Amino acid sequence: MYQASYLKHFTEEVFLAIGCRPEEAKLASEVLISADLRGVDSHGIARLAGYVRLYDNGRLNPTPDIKIVHETPSTAVVDGDRGLGLVVAPKAMEIAMEKAEKVGSGWVSVRNSNHFGIAGYHAMLALQKEMIGMTMTNAAPLVAPTFSLDKLLGTNPIAVAVPALHEPPFVADFASTAVAYGKFEILQRKGLPAPLGWAQDAEGQDTTDSNAVKSGGGLLPLGSDREHGSHKGYGLGAIVDIFSGVLSGANFGPWVPPFATAGFMSAQEGGLGTGHFLGAMRIDGFRPADDFKKDMDKWIGAFRGARAVEGKRVLIPGDPEREIEAVRSIEGIELLEPVILSLSELAQRFNISFDK
Amino acid sequence: MYQASYLKHFTEEVFLAIGCRPEEAKLASEVLISADLRGVDSHGIARLAGYVRLYDNGRLNPTPDIKIVHETPSTAVVDGDRGLGLVVAPKAMEIAMEKAEKVGSGWVSVRNSNHFGIAGYHAMLALQKEMIGMTMTNAAPLVAPTFSLDKLLGTNPIAVAVPALHEPPFVADFASTAVAYGKFEILQRKGLPAPLGWAQDAEGQDTTDSNAVKSGGGLLPLGSDREHGSHKGYGLGAIVDIFSGVLSGANFGPWVPPFATAGFMSAQEGGLGTGHFLGAMRIDGFRPADDFKKDMDKWIGAFRGARAVEGKRVLIPGDPEREIEAVRSIEGIELLEPVILSLSELAQRFNISFDK
Repeated sequence: MYQASYLKHFTEEVFLAIGCRPEEAKLASEVLISADLRGVDSHGIARLAGYVRLYDNGRLNPTPDIKIVHETPSTAVVDGDRGLGLVVAPKAMEIAMEKAEKVGSGWVSVRNSNHFGIAGYHAMLALQKEMIGMTMTNAAPLVAPTFSLDKLLGTNPIAVAVPALHEPPFVADFASTAVAYGKFEILQRKGLPAPLGWAQDAEGQDTTDSNAVKSGGGLLPLGSDREHGSHKGYGLGAIVDIFSGVLSGANFGPWVPPFATAGFMSAQEGGLGTGHFLGAMRIDGFRPADDFKKDMDKWIGAFRGARAVEGKRVLIPGDPEREIEAVRSIEGIELLEPVILSLSELAQRFNISFDK
Repeated sequence: MYQASYLKHFTEEVFLAIGCRPEEAKLASEVLISADLRGVDSHGIARLAGYVRLYDNGRLNPTPDIKIVHETPSTAVVDGDRGLGLVVAPKAMEIAMEKAEKVGSGWVSVRNSNHFGIAGYHAMLALQKEMIGMTMTNAAPLVAPTFSLDKLLGTNPIAVAVPALHEPPFVADFASTAVAYGKFEILQRKGLPAPLGWAQDAEGQDTTDSNAVKSGGGLLPLGSDREHGSHKGYGLGAIVDIFSGVLSGANFGPWVPPFATAGFMSAQEGGLGTGHFLGAMRIDGFRPADDFKKDMDKWIGAFRGARAVEGKRVLIPGDPEREIEAVRSIEGIELLEPVILSLSELAQRFNISFDK
């Protein structure tokens, strides 16, 4: 078990070692470890070695000049200058919130970035300012649109954070696919098959092969098949791609560069990196904030109080992650052996101490 | 077969007969028949008698005073004054586009409205002005969130329209459920079962009973079950409900009033009607419009050109509706017997001619 503060400190040291500025190394480690705290293990410290590989491949600029390249009072395109997405995204969210402060809402499309960690982190930044936050990002193509044999979309997640009064905030954060790719990695490690409806094989047939995506197959959009609405999951992923990639001038569709996970690394990257889209809306741009937040408590109460299937609860988006965070922020975070190994290697390389 | 112009004229006459202002009767008929033209038969003239029932029940104001009740440069709440959603939504979209013209984007949450027809129509209004349009609406509760026995959300659709250069526009328009309720009505008429993954029964179990929603069951969110991501469809429907209902001060969750379809009519309505959320973003608030539209052509080309499963095509969101519109705008629109009957009754009641 590792305390979050320990992992944050280690992560910060690694980012400093590749040349990040101190305040950005700190921010990036905060964002990365928030994933481990919230139970999204696939997007946390397990990826630290991947960010270092991006750096090794010349795809990561540790001292980026993150700047607005075009703007109106409520919109902007931000160029991340190939900085860590973990740093670019919170800065872009700050710009969105500044615009919202002035004109009610702010919407920022980002180019020249890379993996930004968990979408929810950035959306939740808006909560501190009585705003609704929204975040999305495109990603390397792993998903086959309905009836396609080719992979053209990433898992393209969306996060929306909404403040409440006495209740904890509503935080939806989900990929536009039936499942995240991380679910397959777990099954691969255990040598187990996947449920039908998660992936298709190279011929476009539904498959239980948990290695399908590696052998010419693809992840299925949310909805799994046409009869159950996969064209809607495809549409959702497409919207994320257009807002993040096309609107910013970043790469989009099949051209989004891969994150540096083993097996999905490409030697070359064209275009302007990965794209994100971030937005903030001031609650009182619509209604008095307290009226709204009271109604959010009522909304949450109605859903939490619904009659449930035996043995289950009706959860509010954000409940599972918050419950895990409550436990892990006290008891610590358990890391898998391969992750511990990758961190030990980083420790050795950069001469940083790390307790195995 | 009926020509769209004939059905539009008839619809306009009916709206005039219940006291709508001429220009609003014309607009409402335009919006309603656009659904029939685009192949969304459930949201077109089949619902005309329902709007009249809303009027008969005192839930529809034929001469509404649609106005902004609160605003910032990029946001507003609009009160629809219980007018036809078919009229309220385009007016709200106009306000969103005016704001986008001035400050880059405009976002309008609407209260005191009712059914607004097809979401896509309103989103597509933005295309004429080189803007991206977005529309959503909440609706009466037919959907059981993941693990819930209670129905707490409507089919809560989202539409996003994006202009391209030479290619036709990208128009995604989909409910946040596995299927629209209309699919069940078709099966009910034919006495056929439904596929698993569309609805649950009163005990929360997956069912093939196409009458399940009428007998204590509920529609399933997009994703169908937890293993295939139903919590994501639930999250999406929840976002639509919060943006449309809570942000505007309209009804939300289980309190959204039913549309006047037989079997789902309630005697009373509390709160401030149904809620919508509409937005517009100027393309050149982000990038030069021509650069963006060229990239959209490239995006569309990549997806349309993907290798497809044998016997299928990879479609762009908006393709199916546009293809149907191309046919129906020439060959006309076929109406089902019960729809023809309901129109004949309206014709008789209001002394308007109608060719059976």
